[in-house]
Amino acid sequence: MAGQFASVEECLEKNVPEQELKEVKRILYGKELPTITIPESAEKLAVQHSFDIQGYAIPAAKEELTPPRIVRVGVIQNAIVKETTAPIAEQRAALHARISQMTEAAALCGVNIICFQEAWTMPFAFCTREKQPWCEFAENPDNGPTTQLCQELARKFNMVIVSPILERDEIHGDTLWNTAVVISNTGYVLGKSRKNHIPRVGDFNESTYYMEGDTGHTVFQTQFGRIAINICYGRHHPQNWMMYGVNGAEIVFNPSATVGGLSEPMWGIEARNAAIANSYFTCAINRVGTESFPNEFTSADGKPAHKDFGHFYGSSYVAAPDGSRTPGLSRIRDGLLVTEMDLNLCRQVKDRWGFRMTQRLDLYASSLAAAIQPDYQPPVIKDVC
Amino acid sequence: MAGQFASVEECLEKNVPEQELKEVKRILYGKELPTITIPESAEKLAVQHSFDIQGYAIPAAKEELTPPRIVRVGVIQNAIVKETTAPIAEQRAALHARISQMTEAAALCGVNIICFQEAWTMPFAFCTREKQPWCEFAENPDNGPTTQLCQELARKFNMVIVSPILERDEIHGDTLWNTAVVISNTGYVLGKSRKNHIPRVGDFNESTYYMEGDTGHTVFQTQFGRIAINICYGRHHPQNWMMYGVNGAEIVFNPSATVGGLSEPMWGIEARNAAIANSYFTCAINRVGTESFPNEFTSADGKPAHKDFGHFYGSSYVAAPDGSRTPGLSRIRDGLLVTEMDLNLCRQVKDRWGFRMTQRLDLYASSLAAAIQPDYQPPVIKDVC
Repeated sequence: MAGQFASVEECLEKNVPEQELKEVKRILYGKELPTITIPESAEKLAVQHSFDIQGYAIPAAKEELTPPRIVRVGVIQNAIVKETTAPIAEQRAALHARISQMTEAAALCGVNIICFQEAWTMPFAFCTREKQPWCEFAENPDNGPTTQLCQELARKFNMVIVSPILERDEIHGDTLWNTAVVISNTGYVLGKSRKNHIPRVGDFNESTYYMEGDTGHTVFQTQFGRIAINICYGRHHPQNWMMYGVNGAEIVFNPSATVGGLSEPMWGIEARNAAIANSYFTCAINRVGTESFPNEFTSADGKPAHKDFGHFYGSSYVAAPDGSRTPGLSRIRDGLLVTEMDLNLCRQVKDRWGFRMTQRLDLYASSLAAAIQPDYQPPVIKDVC
Repeated sequence: MAGQFASVEECLEKNVPEQELKEVKRILYGKELPTITIPESAEKLAVQHSFDIQGYAIPAAKEELTPPRIVRVGVIQNAIVKETTAPIAEQRAALHARISQMTEAAALCGVNIICFQEAWTMPFAFCTREKQPWCEFAENPDNGPTTQLCQELARKFNMVIVSPILERDEIHGDTLWNTAVVISNTGYVLGKSRKNHIPRVGDFNESTYYMEGDTGHTVFQTQFGRIAINICYGRHHPQNWMMYGVNGAEIVFNPSATVGGLSEPMWGIEARNAAIANSYFTCAINRVGTESFPNEFTSADGKPAHKDFGHFYGSSYVAAPDGSRTPGLSRIRDGLLVTEMDLNLCRQVKDRWGFRMTQRLDLYASSLAAAIQPDYQPPVIKDVC
């Protein structure tokens, strides 16, 4: 079933009577979002290369003094193309070609900013705990082949590209990082943002490969809006999301790689909660498919060794600061989700809900300063009985 | 429709075919929770007094060294009983009687800890901006009539009671607070927890009546587990939820009062995200019904004056640290939700997911210390173009 069930949204549309469906969707997904027209040329590419395209608009109220700040954001989810046993160069080249096609479709849809999935140039091999050949996928974020490709695509399509890769940091002793490279629409490398929180869960102790990021909560002010990147496991940490908001992000991408058995019931909750709490847009991106590795490995769950660790369930979506969200992409197919958003909505929701104003950051700065002391005594009132 | 549609869960059960329903429920609500048997005596009370009872269990894995830490938690949602024009004493007495009945049903279900809704002794009159007669509902948390009633109930039923009221703080200049009083199962007033974040949204600028709480993030260690209370608007603030977790809470109650047009799509997200992020149980409680006030008021939304501000949609639920949650109570009827939880699940989820271990509180203590400075310069990388 996990590998066949396309999406909750599709199932609801099919089964729930119209009047009730409206109420179900309002409660589950917030205000209804209009679809946007996908150009025929993009549809054609999608059919030809077998991926889905969905498009939605998240409008804001009209203001007198500030014109709408419309931006089209694309997120891509995809399966790996070649077997994990193929030569590294071939695996990467195939993914380069795949993502180039899908980015072209995004360009035809007028996308201004696009984000690919976590470690998009490779299978998510960190479950294997083997270092080779997987470390060979690591690249220089400033001028590696993937950054070069993204620079070309950025210039060609006048598109900001967020490219999450396995980074090789040659300056600092050849260490590895899990990093998103941000390339401006002029092809200039704006900078990078490293994964702040590293999982030690089930198949993944990713600190086998790289440690907690040291780039803090950098925000990138692009021509189309202020963006930030919270990579994968960082989505479980509300304080991480919060700091990107404190620093002024309007759109936060969450490129991820996560499987059904592990996290699926949390998927619709976390990035959406972040959008609400921080009055910004979030884009949750997860890869698709099942990746089988050459050597068997165990999952620290008492079960026998195996060669894959489950189904990546896609379901990428965009959440808005007002509590609404787009439907998710499919659980089983590659896809491009195009969302036209008016960034004025961020400030409008701040004005309406006041979460920023009522955040009491001073309280938490001092509470946390106390809490991190080794001899911290939490304020616990104990029943005398 | 808002006043008739009972719940998303009920609608799905009715309309979605069995095999797909299983998958829909897994993705939307996490692992399936067994129901618990509601004793006939409690069912009878419920029928007689026209409220619903639902019961679920959230088990944990068996451990070798630690026996299960089973606790039954009750949450109550209800409409006001009398018209808002009735004498204050009558309104309060009717609510006292109503909640006493429902608490008796909870006792019959073996509930150990119960929490009532926000400001449960009164209509949620803060939308009116009128001070009188509503301020008359305020009470001394140590020995006011409501605390006295709760002490009786606590002793009678051997039950910890969380009683959220409008507090009159006589010691500090007769100020008002929005406060939860915690009464131990022996009838002893353990202490109080004040609402940390105060809304200024739509109908509600509650700072008309009371200010941000000064009791921090106190945790109450009862005989049945460590509890805390995050009142209403505080659920929109992940940092608030976080501090209760840092201080050791295992169950955090969120007594609320919120209407459909305002917050309903966020309701299933926020308390559940908090349970996941902080590896504890959360109990989201919202009142039911439409409350009409004697004098008209406006809602700062350009619409004409009116006497009610919308439908409180109930939908109270319990969320677990592993991403699962109970179905919600009805959107339209009074109800008691009984959840049997094994508190060992909190530590087990911490061990499995490691969110506490990977929280990097030191990073956020220093980031926030910097961010609250008036001359803070966020780390923003600007496109040179």
